[in-house]
Amino acid sequence: MSASSSAQPIGAFDSGVGGLTVVKAMRDLLPAEDIHYLGDTARFPYGNKSPETIIRYSREIMSYLRGHDVKAVVVACNTASTHALAILQKEADIPVIGVIDPGVQAALSATRSGRIGVVGTQGTIYSEAYQKLLRHYRADVFITAVAAPLLVSLVEEDWLSHPATRLILEEYLTPMKKARVDTVVLACTHYPLIKALAQDVLGPDVVLVDSAENAAAALAQKLADAGLGRPVEMKGRTTICSTDVPAQFSQLAERFLGEKIHAIHQVSIG
Amino acid sequence: MSASSSAQPIGAFDSGVGGLTVVKAMRDLLPAEDIHYLGDTARFPYGNKSPETIIRYSREIMSYLRGHDVKAVVVACNTASTHALAILQKEADIPVIGVIDPGVQAALSATRSGRIGVVGTQGTIYSEAYQKLLRHYRADVFITAVAAPLLVSLVEEDWLSHPATRLILEEYLTPMKKARVDTVVLACTHYPLIKALAQDVLGPDVVLVDSAENAAAALAQKLADAGLGRPVEMKGRTTICSTDVPAQFSQLAERFLGEKIHAIHQVSIG
Repeated sequence: MSASSSAQPIGAFDSGVGGLTVVKAMRDLLPAEDIHYLGDTARFPYGNKSPETIIRYSREIMSYLRGHDVKAVVVACNTASTHALAILQKEADIPVIGVIDPGVQAALSATRSGRIGVVGTQGTIYSEAYQKLLRHYRADVFITAVAAPLLVSLVEEDWLSHPATRLILEEYLTPMKKARVDTVVLACTHYPLIKALAQDVLGPDVVLVDSAENAAAALAQKLADAGLGRPVEMKGRTTICSTDVPAQFSQLAERFLGEKIHAIHQVSIG
Repeated sequence: MSASSSAQPIGAFDSGVGGLTVVKAMRDLLPAEDIHYLGDTARFPYGNKSPETIIRYSREIMSYLRGHDVKAVVVACNTASTHALAILQKEADIPVIGVIDPGVQAALSATRSGRIGVVGTQGTIYSEAYQKLLRHYRADVFITAVAAPLLVSLVEEDWLSHPATRLILEEYLTPMKKARVDTVVLACTHYPLIKALAQDVLGPDVVLVDSAENAAAALAQKLADAGLGRPVEMKGRTTICSTDVPAQFSQLAERFLGEKIHAIHQVSIG
């Protein structure tokens, strides 16, 4: 295999639409790069599947993205980052970046008190992926972890300014306030869309760590280290693919990406 | 194959925990019957899968339930009722009852104005299964259909008395009020748990049709017609099986079934 070059696109994938918030952060930070995104909507959700299945799916998608000649891959999915990232990194000769480590590192940099909150889906919280990694880097961290399954539906419903969403966030974030955390990790790719509301509920003194932004920053660093970044004067393109196109998927995808999508290409994987 | 006898159990299945509200209604109406329930949690959710896949899964589960010598089967799942019921009924020599037709019949019996609301998941509402069947029986019916994806999560979170749930229900049910429906079909097996709240939001003049209750009533009628009902003095047992046992599944199952569950048996299908 020939060595990677800066001209090649960056691959990113998720089980569905959520990873597009990571793509948005990548576009904001690396506007010169071409991005090839795959949402594995036909096999969504990943959260309730076994680690073995997640690894198989992730390998299939890596192979698909390598077929599009990517120079790096962002695993823009918490479940795949939890179960498959280490294996993908071992098997690939290109940089592979997950969403968990960048969020954890950012939280540890941000906290002054060592009291950190983590909010995510049931799958992410019960896997303890964030909690274990936080403790791995800093054993004395005090963690308040909250599973918040309603937030994904509220974001997908676009009820971001509905009074019910605020009530629900207040309920979920009460343990964080009681624990006097100074930093909260938004450990789900859907949550950047409720970041402003969460900030409002938690107050201005709590630092919110957005996994999407931090994954994009980790990617930018890797590309710079490897000399694989594109010249800044270029204008990158984003290609959005999915394994199924459910009803209203494109409107949802546009809200997550924060820009108009001209085409969603349906592809087969596995 | 030998003819069915009243001693045999009744089978019921769903993609997950929701069908247990139908089992609850069956227990209430037919306490003498043994019930064998399968929740196909390993392949949950069904809502985003193709009709062909739903048919294959449903056939596999029918074969599993026939292996437990059932005398009738309740398809306690809206997605499987939509896509697989007709095929299962054609292939089986025992009664197979879905959740859609009983709810539709009950709504048409209840309505005075012919103005009917249907509330369900996106999959159920977009499939138009209820709308088509309502129009099939009564062409001039005026239907207001609302997809309410948040309600499943709210029920599973057990936020039944949370102010946010009321706000969300008010939002979803506003089109029903504006359309002055006199009858609303709760077209999701999760919704019996929010029936009281929905009644409160809609007011006492609106008839709420509960698919679970009506499916149980349709089953009771079929058993009586076929002479397959058990003597009323018997006390039936309920066996709960699932293809996976996710975190907190048993607590959730107990809330849906409305009684203590001593064991959930994990089984393999397909």
